[in-house]
Amino acid sequence: MSKPLVIGLIGFGNIGSGVVRTLAERAELIHSRLPRPIVLKTVADKDTTTKRNAPYRPDQLVGDAMTLINDPEIEAVIELVGGLEPARTFVERALRAGKHVVTANKALLAVHGPELMALAEEKGVGLLFEASVGGGIPIIRALEQGLCANELTSVQGILNGTCNYILTRMGERELPFAQALDEAKAQGYAEPDPTYDIEGYDTAHKIAILASLAFGMDIRFKDVFTQGITQLEPADIKAAREMGYTIKLLGIAKREAAGAPAEIRVHPTLIPLNSPLGKVNGVFNGILVNGRPIGTTMYYGRGAGADATSSAVISDLMALAADERGFSRWRDNRLRVQPGVKVIKPMDALETHYYIRFTMADRPGAMATIGRALADQGVSIRSMIQHQSDDSGNRPATISIVTHLAKEKGIQAAIASIEGHEMSAAKAFVLRVEE
Amino acid sequence: MSKPLVIGLIGFGNIGSGVVRTLAERAELIHSRLPRPIVLKTVADKDTTTKRNAPYRPDQLVGDAMTLINDPEIEAVIELVGGLEPARTFVERALRAGKHVVTANKALLAVHGPELMALAEEKGVGLLFEASVGGGIPIIRALEQGLCANELTSVQGILNGTCNYILTRMGERELPFAQALDEAKAQGYAEPDPTYDIEGYDTAHKIAILASLAFGMDIRFKDVFTQGITQLEPADIKAAREMGYTIKLLGIAKREAAGAPAEIRVHPTLIPLNSPLGKVNGVFNGILVNGRPIGTTMYYGRGAGADATSSAVISDLMALAADERGFSRWRDNRLRVQPGVKVIKPMDALETHYYIRFTMADRPGAMATIGRALADQGVSIRSMIQHQSDDSGNRPATISIVTHLAKEKGIQAAIASIEGHEMSAAKAFVLRVEE
Repeated sequence: MSKPLVIGLIGFGNIGSGVVRTLAERAELIHSRLPRPIVLKTVADKDTTTKRNAPYRPDQLVGDAMTLINDPEIEAVIELVGGLEPARTFVERALRAGKHVVTANKALLAVHGPELMALAEEKGVGLLFEASVGGGIPIIRALEQGLCANELTSVQGILNGTCNYILTRMGERELPFAQALDEAKAQGYAEPDPTYDIEGYDTAHKIAILASLAFGMDIRFKDVFTQGITQLEPADIKAAREMGYTIKLLGIAKREAAGAPAEIRVHPTLIPLNSPLGKVNGVFNGILVNGRPIGTTMYYGRGAGADATSSAVISDLMALAADERGFSRWRDNRLRVQPGVKVIKPMDALETHYYIRFTMADRPGAMATIGRALADQGVSIRSMIQHQSDDSGNRPATISIVTHLAKEKGIQAAIASIEGHEMSAAKAFVLRVEE
Repeated sequence: MSKPLVIGLIGFGNIGSGVVRTLAERAELIHSRLPRPIVLKTVADKDTTTKRNAPYRPDQLVGDAMTLINDPEIEAVIELVGGLEPARTFVERALRAGKHVVTANKALLAVHGPELMALAEEKGVGLLFEASVGGGIPIIRALEQGLCANELTSVQGILNGTCNYILTRMGERELPFAQALDEAKAQGYAEPDPTYDIEGYDTAHKIAILASLAFGMDIRFKDVFTQGITQLEPADIKAAREMGYTIKLLGIAKREAAGAPAEIRVHPTLIPLNSPLGKVNGVFNGILVNGRPIGTTMYYGRGAGADATSSAVISDLMALAADERGFSRWRDNRLRVQPGVKVIKPMDALETHYYIRFTMADRPGAMATIGRALADQGVSIRSMIQHQSDDSGNRPATISIVTHLAKEKGIQAAIASIEGHEMSAAKAFVLRVEE
């Protein structure tokens, strides 16, 4: 048998335990598919005392990640610490030490990815990150290998299971956001502090990674327009459904062709009820990829959790162990991110369909006010729903519209004008539509 | 620049033209993603006179495939002839000559695959076949690489766009089979002789390939239980829908765990309307893969056509050109088919839910006859629908049932008993259900 791939793992939490468990439970199967065995030598975590649900010897667990990074016998490091620091330092030092790195850390990649990729390339080692997006869905490999003959024109995904669970429940039961969030927490699908998920930051990290690969550009977290799901009301979901749409938090990366400015945005999005992504419910993720010549493809699966993430992390380890001749950057990263290169369409220049919920005094003239302000900006209305208010005229009326193709700039100007009108009873709420 | 990957293509029809066209149109993009350029030297086809919609020089086109196979400069051969002979001879000779082979030929692989794979291994060359299943959907790479850490327990797919289009139209418009088939022909989605598609043979070839990879077994076309869609009636689709199902032609490969007997079958299948595959309509393909630890994943896209197939064929060429050190069998075929090894569950031993359409005399006692015969075999009924017949009692009544979990053997015995009864007006029609 060949020289084993000796690995170390940093970060022994829920995901780390899942990886160690799966490596042990599926050892025979994994080794039967490789020319070299994978041997886990060391696990590092600040917490060396809590008992984990995974098989390990006490002498394998160390408190200092540098022990592992400085171990010349270790050829590949799995980084499952998460967040920017100290994860960035660990990954950088491991790469500098000439070790391959496998990571699930989307925040790190969306903020420091291109520098780390360049360092890996300089050192001739691999930086693999199948687990960073879409959990177990092999979307990175699909882009880099299966679809590599295509000019990719869009990647659109439901990339956060927490948000998709909340939106699914809001739609099924007309639950207010806060109640659906509480339910997600009770089910273990939302963190005690859910900000990172519900504000769209997680999705923004992930679409930055997918967009960078798909378009070969240097797209970072800060380049992504990001709107979370906290302001959504059951009335929006209901109105959308009556107009034939469902609402999903999408990460969207689109461009007409190579060289054209790319739209990179995260927001709750109206999509047709019967579209492939429209049917992705609960904690599942779905990613739609369009390219030339292939057309549309879609990928679906669990986007989080120890099991799905372990599958992705170990697939990366197996890629590293699959060739006795070592790593080849062309083979494993067929797509290239060009540092510093990006052509991004400013949100102002966006042209799409819009959903707007207006809250107006329940008196004659509300519709006329809205209609006039939109017409002044050249925006025409495709569908409109006003849900019945009581007859008193005391409570404001909610009017939801979907526009024909319109410019973001015109929409924002129309809204400012309507909000300035005396009949406006509250701020307007804007979502975007993808047909 | 490194030594190019010089290739030859056999079979210059619709798909072959698409590959040549895409190689030319996307040349810059393809080369930017590889350390070696891909250079098409020769195309072979019996027909050297018809003008193709693809850029080629007259001197590139030859009438005899052996010219190309015997050319020492050509390192990889694309086989797009289809069918068993002469395709098998071409592939075998190319492999024996030490050339890599890229093929889209599912029939060849489902009949002679393991021998050809063994020959490729012996010669140290690649036999790549991403295009053989699912058109452009990178399902072979997903199984071999993205999901390689998993013990796969099932692969179920809508693998034939022709059948899925016909079934979709039958469901949308209550069209009889023959009319939906005519429509598919008019749309160019069905061949003038559609037997290969509508009898399920194409799906059987594809599920044999997927099952072989997923389970590491030597599963051939002849091992697959195959039932086509020609006997389906709009009434079946309607009854299914009323019970919460849609009907899809599925290729199914399932087993409890490694070593357990595998079910390998193709038949029109009732699946829940809201399941991921239940929503795959028209000419699209969808493939559901279950594994441990990953759980459920799904892959969706166009399953046929020159564009989707070109994407898959060229992804294989790019895999061959992505490493200057040459082909590595472990890297590119992480899953192994073991020649001669198969453990298949006989259809008799199948246990599932069944849909049965009975045609009975419209007189008192029809239901009792059915109920008694099923009860005698220990089969209990979960749902039943009898569509209104006229009041005359002259026309037979159609009674559709879905059973609780039952054994194939018991179902067949009950049907034989009911068909032997004087109230039976026609043969029963059986479908299977996947929950």
